[in-house]
Amino acid sequence: MALPAASRQEFRQEFRQDLADIPILEDAGSVRMRSRDFFWFSPILKEALEDKRAEIIAVPRNKADVMRIAAACARHRVPLTVRGGGTGNYGQAVPLAGGVVLDMGKLDQVIWHKAGAGRFAAGARMLDIDRALAPAGHELRFYPSTRQHATIGGFVAGGAAGAGSCTWGQISDPGAVLAVEVVTVEDQPRVIELTGRDVLKVMHAYGVNGIITEVEVPLAPSHPWCERIATFPSLSAAARCAQTFTECDGVAKKLVTVHDPQVVPFLRRLATYAEPGHAMAIVMVSEPQADAFELMVADHGGCVTFRRTAEDARKAAFAETSGLQPLYEFTWNHTTLHAIRIDPTITYLQLRFPPANNLELVDWVAAQFHGEVLLHLEFQRRFGKVTCSSLPLVRYTTPQRLDNIMAELNAEGVAVSNPHTFVLDDAGWKRVDAPQAEFKRMADPYGLMNPGKLADWQDTRELA
Amino acid sequence: MALPAASRQEFRQEFRQDLADIPILEDAGSVRMRSRDFFWFSPILKEALEDKRAEIIAVPRNKADVMRIAAACARHRVPLTVRGGGTGNYGQAVPLAGGVVLDMGKLDQVIWHKAGAGRFAAGARMLDIDRALAPAGHELRFYPSTRQHATIGGFVAGGAAGAGSCTWGQISDPGAVLAVEVVTVEDQPRVIELTGRDVLKVMHAYGVNGIITEVEVPLAPSHPWCERIATFPSLSAAARCAQTFTECDGVAKKLVTVHDPQVVPFLRRLATYAEPGHAMAIVMVSEPQADAFELMVADHGGCVTFRRTAEDARKAAFAETSGLQPLYEFTWNHTTLHAIRIDPTITYLQLRFPPANNLELVDWVAAQFHGEVLLHLEFQRRFGKVTCSSLPLVRYTTPQRLDNIMAELNAEGVAVSNPHTFVLDDAGWKRVDAPQAEFKRMADPYGLMNPGKLADWQDTRELA
Repeated sequence: MALPAASRQEFRQEFRQDLADIPILEDAGSVRMRSRDFFWFSPILKEALEDKRAEIIAVPRNKADVMRIAAACARHRVPLTVRGGGTGNYGQAVPLAGGVVLDMGKLDQVIWHKAGAGRFAAGARMLDIDRALAPAGHELRFYPSTRQHATIGGFVAGGAAGAGSCTWGQISDPGAVLAVEVVTVEDQPRVIELTGRDVLKVMHAYGVNGIITEVEVPLAPSHPWCERIATFPSLSAAARCAQTFTECDGVAKKLVTVHDPQVVPFLRRLATYAEPGHAMAIVMVSEPQADAFELMVADHGGCVTFRRTAEDARKAAFAETSGLQPLYEFTWNHTTLHAIRIDPTITYLQLRFPPANNLELVDWVAAQFHGEVLLHLEFQRRFGKVTCSSLPLVRYTTPQRLDNIMAELNAEGVAVSNPHTFVLDDAGWKRVDAPQAEFKRMADPYGLMNPGKLADWQDTRELA
Repeated sequence: MALPAASRQEFRQEFRQDLADIPILEDAGSVRMRSRDFFWFSPILKEALEDKRAEIIAVPRNKADVMRIAAACARHRVPLTVRGGGTGNYGQAVPLAGGVVLDMGKLDQVIWHKAGAGRFAAGARMLDIDRALAPAGHELRFYPSTRQHATIGGFVAGGAAGAGSCTWGQISDPGAVLAVEVVTVEDQPRVIELTGRDVLKVMHAYGVNGIITEVEVPLAPSHPWCERIATFPSLSAAARCAQTFTECDGVAKKLVTVHDPQVVPFLRRLATYAEPGHAMAIVMVSEPQADAFELMVADHGGCVTFRRTAEDARKAAFAETSGLQPLYEFTWNHTTLHAIRIDPTITYLQLRFPPANNLELVDWVAAQFHGEVLLHLEFQRRFGKVTCSSLPLVRYTTPQRLDNIMAELNAEGVAVSNPHTFVLDDAGWKRVDAPQAEFKRMADPYGLMNPGKLADWQDTRELA
């Protein structure tokens, strides 16, 4: 979709006229920075996406701007890629075919909130939302470890779970998103409100079938989340403690993570809290109930080595203090970030362990791929049962070896989501029970939304 | 332990002197009323306990009064039975050996509350506690269907689960009670603070090993709980919907009850919301998420027949309006109350279904004892899994038949707790992992706390 030079000049002029006074960035630095996400966690995606660039970055100030940009893209058949915080890992925010990147960061309003629910503009950052909700005693149920930069729209479009999943499950669970507002990419863009199960039409669709402009989610009343680190002689002991703790319905909790002893040295600022060779559990628990966790740690032969009060943890998260960052920034896929900074040959995978025998499979993976697949476990509820997922660090050698590891894991019953592809057909598109493709045909009739992400879409879309 | 007439006179005089100005009730009406609980749900307990009476009712105004009464009882070797709201079902509050009933109703202070936890005097009624907490956006995690009359101390001493258990499990789960203050029955009564796992020493001990004076529990931040009734063509369909709904981690919920079609006619004021022969589900769900429930009802071939907003449900619970009582008063053991009022030959049982195959066992019980054991199911979380318990209505014939039913249920894997005994040895005493008996020897050295409830206690206690 890259245009020839003459056409590009013409495109720029006409497109700018259509955009009127909407802020645009086109200097090389800005364009590069906003054409990227964290795809470079994958050596395979790094090679594939490193050079992809938008032509320009458009920064809408409000919904009217979004609609104007959508109309201009439709009229001129310009590819359009929606960008939230750029914290994704599969090139969701990378424009595969140039064109415009739509930076949603200025649409960041808290539209309303009440007991039990709130509605937010898509570009609102999740930490900022929680900062705004705090005086009312509410909070987002979920946030990824990238809470500081991730937007609520991006999380709904490309996220799945995170801190909060040990209590609330996943963002695609029934009822976890109440409504999504979407703007279509047509000559006359429409504003469509999706509610009930219709929200699944655009969830985890990576922004290829409509511009998400507002998100309405249930809120959790907030607990005073304090932080604890516990260490254990083995991964197995730590995992069993974490499982028991997560199964303990009566203790309110926000985060339960377990790191294999081999992962701990990569978490440089936490490594001092564990003896070498020890596994580490990180939890956020309602402060009055922290003792219940500590008793379970002792039961499992562990030792609590770090305690931070709810108030101090809150200050750390909201950057009201210097010192150690919030502990959730050492969990989920932040773990990979810490590791790659120390060893650039590290990459990762995405695993789900079935609840029936998750701990046995954890032991098996740890033994089978010792030194190569380094587990950290994220305990969560899934459809009423407790299990764990993992974004294990992987010492990367070749694409073939990575494929073999994935095949072996799948064969043993560990579900692998391949994070080393940007092609949605291979990574979730149409997997949920919703007509995502049908919705794309309606919301993006010219097939302009990040073309290239759907392998089989060229045949059906109307070519520009 | 009933005293001869002459001694009784002397006892009364000396005892009164010791009690000084502590309010006492001794008219026959008051003594009868406060010597009873809901034991009469059981025809067996009714026969055994109907005539049991205290000598006097003491109504302490504060902790100093409690200690004075405990000292007087110890000094004069007078049996002492602690009474909360009198809403129990096994004669916990019935003085088996006369003496004093200690009515804790005036010790009803909210001692303090903060985010995540609160501390209450034992005699505080659970509805009143929630009324006091509401402005801060907090609430008790659990309450029995007798929320209006039940005290927090009584619930900890004799309760187990209730509304809230679909989210928070049971009151004896780790972390579900933070601390309990107990006054001993000794010549010099002591005030003992139990924390951590030590709280289990007095939980579900029915007040036989110390006078619970204060209770500290974790609080839940409150959701706007609206009410829904849904009906289904069969118990099986209703149960499957309820199971799926309870397993739905992403929907905040307070109550999930299912009534067999045969139970519905006993719930007179609700019967109009179901066609004859239909099963009924009653839920309390966070209002912004009620649609998620309604979608699941449709999936399971059901129909939503009653909707009440969170605000109207709150008013109904807090008696700020006339009209239909809160729906939780048609669940848990309130169901038995409604049924006995219509048919005095009804009694009940207490069943726990194992999570692995609870729905299959529900179907089996419904078929095996059709017309005799009428199920209503209370869905709850237990140690990280979703299952259901039941307090089924039973058409009572003979004690032998009741025993046979219980034996057959147990043999099939349905765990029965026999609610037709007041002897704790048969119903929970020492079942939990805590030295309850050892604690009794310390806190009640003269064996004065409701003597008769422990079958094997006569041998070890120092006889008066």
